[in-house]
Amino acid sequence: MHDPYGTLIGSLALETGTRIALLVMDGVGDCDNDGRGTALQQARTPNLDALSKISALGQHIPVAPAVTPGSGPGHLGLFGYDPLLYKVGRGVLSALGIEFKLTRRDVAARLNFCTLDDDGNVTDRRAGRIGDDENRRLLKKIRGALVPPEGVEVLLETVAEHRALLVLRGDDLDDNVGDTDPQATGVPPLPPGRGRHAESRTAALYADIAGRVRTILSDEPRANMILARGFAKFPDWPTFEDRFKLKPAAVAGYPMYRGVARLVGMPVTAQPTTAADVCAETGRALADHTFVFAHFKYTDKTGEDGDLPGKIARIEEVDAALPALLERKPDVLLITGDHSTPPSLKAHSWHPVPVLMHAPFLRGGDGPGFDEIACRRGQLGTVRACELVPLALAHARKLEKFGA
Amino acid sequence: MHDPYGTLIGSLALETGTRIALLVMDGVGDCDNDGRGTALQQARTPNLDALSKISALGQHIPVAPAVTPGSGPGHLGLFGYDPLLYKVGRGVLSALGIEFKLTRRDVAARLNFCTLDDDGNVTDRRAGRIGDDENRRLLKKIRGALVPPEGVEVLLETVAEHRALLVLRGDDLDDNVGDTDPQATGVPPLPPGRGRHAESRTAALYADIAGRVRTILSDEPRANMILARGFAKFPDWPTFEDRFKLKPAAVAGYPMYRGVARLVGMPVTAQPTTAADVCAETGRALADHTFVFAHFKYTDKTGEDGDLPGKIARIEEVDAALPALLERKPDVLLITGDHSTPPSLKAHSWHPVPVLMHAPFLRGGDGPGFDEIACRRGQLGTVRACELVPLALAHARKLEKFGA
Repeated sequence: MHDPYGTLIGSLALETGTRIALLVMDGVGDCDNDGRGTALQQARTPNLDALSKISALGQHIPVAPAVTPGSGPGHLGLFGYDPLLYKVGRGVLSALGIEFKLTRRDVAARLNFCTLDDDGNVTDRRAGRIGDDENRRLLKKIRGALVPPEGVEVLLETVAEHRALLVLRGDDLDDNVGDTDPQATGVPPLPPGRGRHAESRTAALYADIAGRVRTILSDEPRANMILARGFAKFPDWPTFEDRFKLKPAAVAGYPMYRGVARLVGMPVTAQPTTAADVCAETGRALADHTFVFAHFKYTDKTGEDGDLPGKIARIEEVDAALPALLERKPDVLLITGDHSTPPSLKAHSWHPVPVLMHAPFLRGGDGPGFDEIACRRGQLGTVRACELVPLALAHARKLEKFGA
Repeated sequence: MHDPYGTLIGSLALETGTRIALLVMDGVGDCDNDGRGTALQQARTPNLDALSKISALGQHIPVAPAVTPGSGPGHLGLFGYDPLLYKVGRGVLSALGIEFKLTRRDVAARLNFCTLDDDGNVTDRRAGRIGDDENRRLLKKIRGALVPPEGVEVLLETVAEHRALLVLRGDDLDDNVGDTDPQATGVPPLPPGRGRHAESRTAALYADIAGRVRTILSDEPRANMILARGFAKFPDWPTFEDRFKLKPAAVAGYPMYRGVARLVGMPVTAQPTTAADVCAETGRALADHTFVFAHFKYTDKTGEDGDLPGKIARIEEVDAALPALLERKPDVLLITGDHSTPPSLKAHSWHPVPVLMHAPFLRGGDGPGFDEIACRRGQLGTVRACELVPLALAHARKLEKFGA
């Protein structure tokens, strides 16, 4: 991994007792809602307003200009891992999303149930979008009948609808396995060992397994085959603790975010979901950790639902809960999102994300409020997400001087 | 080509029906003209002013901080090709400038006529700056007498004064040919096959050709030899269409800009020169293209002439013509320049270039006006030129999410 900036910061990091809190309001950034202003602009947030007057404001670019991040890359950036360098395969992301605990012996892939016709061509890549119950029944049927090839364990988990997780577990497995999903109908599934995948032992194993699954599902009317993509191993990255000399804790109520924390070796100390509980648990975790990542989901969920009033209300909930965190006086408090989720888009977006950093050694406060407009004028300027942990380390006096 | 950002954007690009227009006011950026303000500040531009109130403003850096771009790199950046990675040889730029249609079998070089003394040393690298007519006469003389080596065709075109274009056409030609221009007088032309160029078959061919030209021109009093530099092949880059999944059209009245469009496979659909025609033709091209590049030359030309009132008038012409483009309602409209050409400098410059982006999913409008000062405070911030097409793609909903 050629990561000059991350390596530099790691080489300068010092272990000290100062404490950093990172509060992620998932998807907090917004557009202007036809002139009514962003959710942050419209929300009544007396605590954030007061804090912003004695804090530095700025905005971060989650991945790169114009790029909309998924939750994985969005959080990796916030954890100080450049998501353009630290890439996570789709199989691993699927495992994170259901908090399946991958080991170093595993190769994960995302499965779709699909429909094949009598000639073996795909007629529906999603098997009519079967429901979760049907998905569970089919996996149970496969588990009951499948005799895996020698030396490999096959683990299957329902994700949702037609989607499932496949994990191959064994010694010396590789992830050089081709997608079998042809991304089209009227053609057969692709062979996993084609082209540059020909040398993969795991591709040959998976071809064998897929053949056996085809037999097991042959009497099914709709979901009579599986398609796999994104074969990937749990990445072998430096842990957050080793890299930044921090003792981290994750406070996160949803599986995906606990999963991303695990990706960098960050242990989960609490699983709250409400703003009040998130702030209270974060405060508690600060008692014996030097870095606490806290995740609040509903600013994203309301954005995805196109629910602007809901998003405003969720921001106000966080604001009301904030004193429980502030009273534990972290040395540095970062409040931001992993990306923007404008209700007008009903989806994640590429826009820069507002950042508030309450910390010593500022150039005055940037207030009066914490919103997209104030933030883009703030003293932090526009930074990349993966520069925020380094900045927090600097303000917490955890970085040595570079060069004599 | 190691281009992680361009490759990422390409991998996320979706083919959709939304339409993007890029209006380039060549060299539009300016300095402050001894406190009188920039040309954009002084121009009366009611249409741009109104548009800026409902648009995002920002500024772009064409190549890199402090670097003044030529027209080639300036436009490549705007087309989403990082000009630090996508380099164009001088020979190819010469061909673009006169719209010579290079093929994949060609190697192009820039020629200067020069004067050699009896010992074969260069006494004048520009042959007394001969005129265009003399240049044409000399090329005609060479064409008439030159017997090219087996398997290669030699094409010669006048550029201007002492400058010409040389194109070698044949199978398996390479561009590993050394410059023969010694960049000094009192020394002989350099051999094209020296050092690392020794293995080049094309260098040997060109040495042969240059020897024959020397004989043909031996009775000329001034221009009795040629010097060549910048041997280059037409670059083998991904086309704009393949890269961004857009159906592009170029609307450009001058050869250089049509040439740069061809460099990325962008077909030219109209060749207007006046602002009114440029805007009208751009609107027309939007009917059946998803990306239209429109070029207006005279903001640069007046800048190069040091003609501030002229530059102001040209900006006002564009402003007056704008409604013909706006009424075609592109989903995203970018208005910017390929670089700045301050009349006080009479040349291209390194300054950031104002950008206006009219698009959905903004964070309010940034107006009240479109000029260098408003733009550097705008919501787009300061971006690299090669990030503008990606941003337009994002706002036109043409980019998938990165990671799950």
